Amino acid sequence: MSSSKPVFIAVIGAGGVGKCFLSQLKALAARRQSPKLSLCYISTSKKALYDASYSAIPISDALEKLSAASQVPQALPQLADYLAAAPAKVVLIDNTSSEDVAGAYPVFLGRGISIVTPNKKAFSGSYKLWQDIFSAASTSGAKVYHESSVGAGLPVISTLKDIVDTGDRVTKIEGVFSGTMSFLFNSFAPTTGSGGKWSAEVAKAKELGYTEPDPRDDLNGLDVARKLTILARLAGLPVESPTSFPVESLIPKELESCSSGDDFLQRLPEFDAKMEETKAAAEKQGKVVRFVGSINVASEEVKVGLERFDASHPIAALKGSDNIISFYTERYGSNPLIIQGAGAGGEVTAMGVTSDLIKVLNQIA
Amino acid sequence: MSSSKPVFIAVIGAGGVGKCFLSQLKALAARRQSPKLSLCYISTSKKALYDASYSAIPISDALEKLSAASQVPQALPQLADYLAAAPAKVVLIDNTSSEDVAGAYPVFLGRGISIVTPNKKAFSGSYKLWQDIFSAASTSGAKVYHESSVGAGLPVISTLKDIVDTGDRVTKIEGVFSGTMSFLFNSFAPTTGSGGKWSAEVAKAKELGYTEPDPRDDLNGLDVARKLTILARLAGLPVESPTSFPVESLIPKELESCSSGDDFLQRLPEFDAKMEETKAAAEKQGKVVRFVGSINVASEEVKVGLERFDASHPIAALKGSDNIISFYTERYGSNPLIIQGAGAGGEVTAMGVTSDLIKVLNQIA
Repeated sequence: MSSSKPVFIAVIGAGGVGKCFLSQLKALAARRQSPKLSLCYISTSKKALYDASYSAIPISDALEKLSAASQVPQALPQLADYLAAAPAKVVLIDNTSSEDVAGAYPVFLGRGISIVTPNKKAFSGSYKLWQDIFSAASTSGAKVYHESSVGAGLPVISTLKDIVDTGDRVTKIEGVFSGTMSFLFNSFAPTTGSGGKWSAEVAKAKELGYTEPDPRDDLNGLDVARKLTILARLAGLPVESPTSFPVESLIPKELESCSSGDDFLQRLPEFDAKMEETKAAAEKQGKVVRFVGSINVASEEVKVGLERFDASHPIAALKGSDNIISFYTERYGSNPLIIQGAGAGGEVTAMGVTSDLIKVLNQIA
Repeated sequence: MSSSKPVFIAVIGAGGVGKCFLSQLKALAARRQSPKLSLCYISTSKKALYDASYSAIPISDALEKLSAASQVPQALPQLADYLAAAPAKVVLIDNTSSEDVAGAYPVFLGRGISIVTPNKKAFSGSYKLWQDIFSAASTSGAKVYHESSVGAGLPVISTLKDIVDTGDRVTKIEGVFSGTMSFLFNSFAPTTGSGGKWSAEVAKAKELGYTEPDPRDDLNGLDVARKLTILARLAGLPVESPTSFPVESLIPKELESCSSGDDFLQRLPEFDAKMEETKAAAEKQGKVVRFVGSINVASEEVKVGLERFDASHPIAALKGSDNIISFYTERYGSNPLIIQGAGAGGEVTAMGVTSDLIKVLNQIA
């Protein structure tokens, strides 16, 4: 059953996730004798490593060679030509968060190049792009896997696909989909004790590296909205875009125009009283406040924002920066199937990419 | 990429899970045009339906026709001959809990017949059988999937495989692996309130259909020990058998020889005081008692029995008859990857079987 032909691997992106992925790829290539995995292309936004005869780039020193490389990355249409002409099957690993690369997926897939990626952009962009991606894949037989686009290495996408593919019906999906938001609310409104001031928790999260360089990129809720868009579509709702449903931003209107993240953080304490009110109102009901996303399939309602939960609810009891995702389905009834754990970080995001790659290899090789 | 040949499906077992599976298979065959799924064999322990030309058995009335059939099941070696001679690829679905069928997996796999099953017996029998199964599969290229052997449709086995296959290292696995035990302890020792008497909870669980006909078959811990054996082996420990590590039985020694389950239930109240003591001792520490299984990979320790947990621990906070499985790994650090939900029931067990079948079809067809 095993083929003696290699499978060519092309990698775009060598940042945090990309570096972790390369080290996992190296170990995988060493363990997996058949098919032989041959890295034929690797690029950052500035540099690239490849040659016309698809020579194998040694994975162990690919990063070092890449930083010394003099070639620039191929433009996406040329890259598609290059990979489509390879003398064996190709899997393209997109470890960027680039909208441009995402937009080219239909071209790659249409030419038989499989794609594995943690990049949310393609699957949470326009519904048209979503349709183009899956129709290109279905026509050519190329595979497209994106487990790490929601919850990093947690088995979220694969579980939802299994639920749908086996004929169950999702009724509701609910959860905490952002490690940053999880950390912020677990410390700001803990189930026991009183928690810190909102602005102080945001500053602390930034210091610990839990936020984007500008924390507003987490607080605007768009990252969560993108993840909800992906899950809603997989559950059968033709959601048009991550801005086509209500998303509550935690950036005070007055601070939207701050010139920098630091400027924003400096002024955030002015709004602590308002967040304190929100917390107190929940406490009055014996509840805590959390930043959640939810999809109600029957009513086709998708929303992102603050909700109140009993202290005993699994969403309230979350720890650290963990994600939690609850799938309510007809088969599982009122007790949902729950998946919980770290939903961000280089190693676990790369793990989702590597496990997708293994699934693709099992099918194409 | 899609083949025009059918894939033949052979099904052994038409009990609770088998019936649910057939209805899921019918829906799958209707949705999935390529490959065409062709049911060529179905049997119970008494009857069978098949013919020498592998004619397609209409899935919708397979059960009805089976109950009216006059053929007896083929002996396992003959069934292997029959299926190996089929004019296309074959997947055997073992929906029994038979040790005999399990023992024949290496023969089927060795002849290129893929296997999908919720049957724990093959994977929790002798370590020799485990090795024979996977070496037969790896030699012939046939696939063997058994998601539903632990936690029914919950993505437990697939997640553990992804963790291991991507090069992460499991340090500990811990959880509640029995819906019966979950229900019993969630009601006997709830995190709030005082709970019922032990014998009354066991009687209630039996009435609700949550136990085996003889509740001792749950209370002896063997079912949990079998699941732990499977997970430990997947995590890399060569566990010899489910009786090769400590398993705490909740059957009082004096009641092991009761002639029937009813007899056992009648005498169980004599031992309520002892269980009450166990509960009180935990409460004194502010904890609750739960029946858990755990695997410590570094120390190669596998054990099943009563443990105490803080009320805020996810294992203590479990509801109804849910299972919970926590994977501690090097990548996930001190916050485990957790999977939780119903771990028993015909529909969700069949769901694990159907999703495995889809994975096999994606690879062989």
